[in-house]
Amino acid sequence: MGEPWLLTPGPLSTSFAVKSAMLTDLGSWDSDFRAMTAEVRARLVALLGEGGEAYTCVPMQGSGSYCVEAMLGTLVPRAGRALVLANGAYGARAAQMLRVMGRAVVVLDKGDYLPPRGAEVAAILAQDPAISHVVAIHCETSSGILNPLPEIAAAVAGAGRRLLIDSMSAFGAVPVLPAEIAFDALVSSANKCIEGVPGFGFVLVRRAALAEATGNAHALCLDIAAQSAEFERSGQWRFTPPTHAVAAFLQALREHEAEGGVAARGARYAANRDRLVAGMRQMGFETLLSDAWLSPVITTFFCPADPAFVFADFYDRMKAKGFILYPGKLTQVDSFRIGTIGRLDTGVIDAVLAAVRDTLAETGVRGAAPSGAALGERARFLAEVAA
Amino acid sequence: MGEPWLLTPGPLSTSFAVKSAMLTDLGSWDSDFRAMTAEVRARLVALLGEGGEAYTCVPMQGSGSYCVEAMLGTLVPRAGRALVLANGAYGARAAQMLRVMGRAVVVLDKGDYLPPRGAEVAAILAQDPAISHVVAIHCETSSGILNPLPEIAAAVAGAGRRLLIDSMSAFGAVPVLPAEIAFDALVSSANKCIEGVPGFGFVLVRRAALAEATGNAHALCLDIAAQSAEFERSGQWRFTPPTHAVAAFLQALREHEAEGGVAARGARYAANRDRLVAGMRQMGFETLLSDAWLSPVITTFFCPADPAFVFADFYDRMKAKGFILYPGKLTQVDSFRIGTIGRLDTGVIDAVLAAVRDTLAETGVRGAAPSGAALGERARFLAEVAA
Repeated sequence: MGEPWLLTPGPLSTSFAVKSAMLTDLGSWDSDFRAMTAEVRARLVALLGEGGEAYTCVPMQGSGSYCVEAMLGTLVPRAGRALVLANGAYGARAAQMLRVMGRAVVVLDKGDYLPPRGAEVAAILAQDPAISHVVAIHCETSSGILNPLPEIAAAVAGAGRRLLIDSMSAFGAVPVLPAEIAFDALVSSANKCIEGVPGFGFVLVRRAALAEATGNAHALCLDIAAQSAEFERSGQWRFTPPTHAVAAFLQALREHEAEGGVAARGARYAANRDRLVAGMRQMGFETLLSDAWLSPVITTFFCPADPAFVFADFYDRMKAKGFILYPGKLTQVDSFRIGTIGRLDTGVIDAVLAAVRDTLAETGVRGAAPSGAALGERARFLAEVAA
Repeated sequence: MGEPWLLTPGPLSTSFAVKSAMLTDLGSWDSDFRAMTAEVRARLVALLGEGGEAYTCVPMQGSGSYCVEAMLGTLVPRAGRALVLANGAYGARAAQMLRVMGRAVVVLDKGDYLPPRGAEVAAILAQDPAISHVVAIHCETSSGILNPLPEIAAAVAGAGRRLLIDSMSAFGAVPVLPAEIAFDALVSSANKCIEGVPGFGFVLVRRAALAEATGNAHALCLDIAAQSAEFERSGQWRFTPPTHAVAAFLQALREHEAEGGVAARGARYAANRDRLVAGMRQMGFETLLSDAWLSPVITTFFCPADPAFVFADFYDRMKAKGFILYPGKLTQVDSFRIGTIGRLDTGVIDAVLAAVRDTLAETGVRGAAPSGAALGERARFLAEVAA
C-alpha cells in the first residue's frame, strides 16, 4: 500500500507532479522566481473571469487564517464596523480576529445547520447603518455547509456596504465571479481546491478598495496593501516566500487549467460528494445538513448511535486501510467529516465506502443511524429558528 | 549543468534528501505528523544545551519576519517599551513592527559598519528605566555583521531587562546558549543555518516569560502564547501547518546533528567564508566590514570602482555560470553580498571564485578595488562615530 489518501479539506492529496516541483531550490530574489510569482498571480486573477481586471492578487506567506486576518485588518478601517456571518468555527475565528485587532464587530450566528440568508443580512444592515463591511464564509468546513453567496452579496451591495469573502475551501471549485457577485476581496489558500501544498494563501482584492487601505493594517506582516505595493514595485514578495510551495502551486494551477478550470474541478468534487453521500446513506449514516446546503468540499456525518462505534478506533482502522479522515468534532452533536477534494475521483470514493463498510463489520457496528438524541437536537434547533 | 548554487542567506541550497522529504502529503491532524512536530520542537530546544529545559519551542507559519513580529507582539507588553539595537534593514524592520503595533520603541542606530556594544547598551538602559525589553539582531544580513551578543546580553541582564534575539540567519551555526547568555526569546527560520526550506520559523522562548504574555499579542495569528498553548494541549499547530516544509526541516535537523551540530555547521560556514574572503581580496575586492565583525553567514563586498563593473550584468553572468548571488543593495554605499551558508563547502567556494575571476575578465574589469568615494564615506562615518 502506498501513501494514504487524505480525505481532509487541506492539506490534501496532491499530484506527484505538484510535489516534484519542490525538488528545486529557487532564489527568492531571482528573475526566474519573480516570473513564477507573476504567473501565479495572473492565473489567479484570470479565474475571476469577466470583471477580473478590477482585481489584483496578493499572495501572503502563512496559513489561510493569516490571509483572512490580513484581509480583515487591511480592508476594515480602524473606525470601521464589520458584520460577520457565522455558522461554524471559521466565522467565529474571523470575529475573534476583529476583536483582537480592536475593530468593532457584530456577529450573526446561525449555529451548525443553517446558512445566513440574504433577507436577514439586509435586515441587519438596514438596522445598523454603521456597519461598513460584511464578512462571509463561503464554505464553512466545520459542517461543510456551502453558504448562499449570491444572495448575501446582493443584500450587501443593495445596502451599499462592502463584502469580504473567506472562500478558503471553495475557490477554484465553486465560481466566485465579479460579473455576478459584488465583493471587495476574497481569500483562499494554496492547499485547497487548486490542489497545491500548504505554505501560503492569497487575497484577490479590488484595486480601488486596496488603494483606500494604506495604513489600516494592525500588523506589519499582515498588511496586504504593503505586500501588494512590493509586488507592484519589484515583482517580489516583501519577506522570504515559501519558494518550493510557490513552485508546487504553479504546477497545480496548470493542472487545474488542464482539467477544465473551475467548472470541471467543481464537477469532479461534486461527483465525489454525491457518490460518498449516497454510499454512506445506504449504510445508514445521516448527513448533518440537508441536501440543499451540502458543499462538494467536505461532508459531516452524524456518528452512529451504536455504542460499538468509537470514532478514534474508526479513524485508526480507516487509516490502516489507507484513508486519513478529518478528526476533530467541530459541531454541537457527535459527528465526523469526510473531505472529497484533492486528487480523488469516484474510484477512490468507492474504496473509501468499502473501507467504511469493512470497518463497521470488523467492529461489530450493526447500524450507522445516528442517535435519537442527536436528531432531536437538530430538530429542536431548527424548530427554535423557525419559531 | 545542474541546478544553480544559491549564495544567499535563505532560501539556500538544501540537500536532495531534505527536498525529497516533501514528496509525501501528510494529514496535519494525524498522529504521524504530530510526532514529527514534536520531534522538531524537541530537537530545536536541545540545540540550546544546558539550561534549555527552561525554554519551549513554538513553530510559527510564515516567513521569519512573521516570527519576529509574533515574538515582539507577544512578549513586549502593550505598556512595555523596547530598545531596538539596529545596524541594518532587519533592526529597522523590528522597530517598524513595534510602531505599527503601537508599542513604545527607542532605536540605537549604528549605521552599516559597526555593532552595538555592551557599554552603550548599558548606558542607554541606565538613562531610561522605562525600557522593559531590548531587541538584538544576532547576524544583521544587510551587511553580514555578527553582533556581539554575549556583551549585549550581559548589559541587558545587568540592568534587569529582558532580551529578545533575532537570530534568524545565525541560529544553528553560531551558538546561543542560555548557560552563557540570558534571554527571554530568540527567533530563527527553517530555511537558514539548519538548511530546511522556507515556510515557517520558530521562537525559542523561556516558559516563564511566555506564561506572563497571554493576551498581549496584537494579532490573532501572530500570538506565540496562543500557538504554544495549542501545542501543549493537542500537539497540533493552531492553523494549517506547511506539512511538507516541516517534513523537510525534520530531515534537515537530522542532517545537522549528523554533521556534528552547531559547532561543525559553524566551522564549515566559517571555512567557506574564509576561503571566499581571501580569494576575493586576492582579486582586489574589499569587504565592507573589518574582519572582527564578519559573520560566517554572508559577506558584503564593495562594488569595484571600475565603470566596466555593472552589478546587474555581473549577477547575470554569475547565474549563467551556476551561481545565484544575493542582489539588492542594503547599505549606504554600492555593495553586493555573497552568502556562505547552505549545502556549500570550500570546493564550491573555489568554483565561485573562479567564476568571479572569469566574469571580471569577460567584462573587462581591470581591478576590483572600491572607489575612493566609497572608502571615504566609510572612513568619514567611522571618524564621526569615534569623535
